[in-house]
Amino acid sequence: MTGRGETASFADVMLSLRDKMELALDEARQAAKAGEVPVGAVLFDRRDGSVLAVAHNRVERDHDPTAHAEMLAIRSAAKRLGSKRLIDAELFVTLEPCPMCAQAISFARLARVVFGAYDPKAGGVEHGPRIFDQPGCNHRPDIVAGVQESQCGLLLKDFFQARR
Amino acid sequence: MTGRGETASFADVMLSLRDKMELALDEARQAAKAGEVPVGAVLFDRRDGSVLAVAHNRVERDHDPTAHAEMLAIRSAAKRLGSKRLIDAELFVTLEPCPMCAQAISFARLARVVFGAYDPKAGGVEHGPRIFDQPGCNHRPDIVAGVQESQCGLLLKDFFQARR
Repeated sequence: MTGRGETASFADVMLSLRDKMELALDEARQAAKAGEVPVGAVLFDRRDGSVLAVAHNRVERDHDPTAHAEMLAIRSAAKRLGSKRLIDAELFVTLEPCPMCAQAISFARLARVVFGAYDPKAGGVEHGPRIFDQPGCNHRPDIVAGVQESQCGLLLKDFFQARR
Repeated sequence: MTGRGETASFADVMLSLRDKMELALDEARQAAKAGEVPVGAVLFDRRDGSVLAVAHNRVERDHDPTAHAEMLAIRSAAKRLGSKRLIDAELFVTLEPCPMCAQAISFARLARVVFGAYDPKAGGVEHGPRIFDQPGCNHRPDIVAGVQESQCGLLLKDFFQARR
């Protein structure tokens, strides 16, 4: 029975990760509809699973080169909670964060980052400067990579192919 | 005469760099007065020297871990000009930009970055991940380091000593 219990529990956790990423994917789809690079992000309170912020890329609409989904979600949640640190927050984002966003995630002290597709060209977590592995990086969140990877990546691939 | 002319011209340029950094220092002093880490930034249009944006650190006031002086200046100028890229802009900032800000500077395609004090612990230009030297970095601005270095650094030193 213990074995079955553990299996069920593990399946629940996996489902939960996928479900949470599905919310980030919904945001990414909204970005694509708006002509933005389709990346979506959701910040959850890991204690009760409540949503702290949702966001998608708004670089074009806002004329803001820093308006990545992760930055907007962090800024929104920090403002809402009145704290520059979000120690109980976990970020679900459809694409590996870039170096700018990874550093912001470290500043905000997020507990965990779950991302979908890898970004070998412009990513800053598992690629490039690997921000969290830098000696000067004061906070490294737990990282879960590749959740809903194919769907997250396909959305980006379709978006860029349609624009070629 | 040519030699003298060149000397005068070089002195003018140096004066100009110092004068522009003085504006950034004024912003940094305002940050200190407000209880923020004293870093100031000014964005100039390099074609006519006009000021595009001024900003200082507002992390505490705004409860925003991304509200570094450079980020605020870039966002402000981009919004004002209605463009995510600021190809004719030069940024004067009192401290070496961190990795987050350096990546934002690259995204915004700034022409030049002039900074005052070096930041061996948390800098991302001449230290740490050296964002502009990363193979995946699409735009590297011209860099001038150490302008008004001692004054920029002293302001930070005094601020942190007073808080110990």
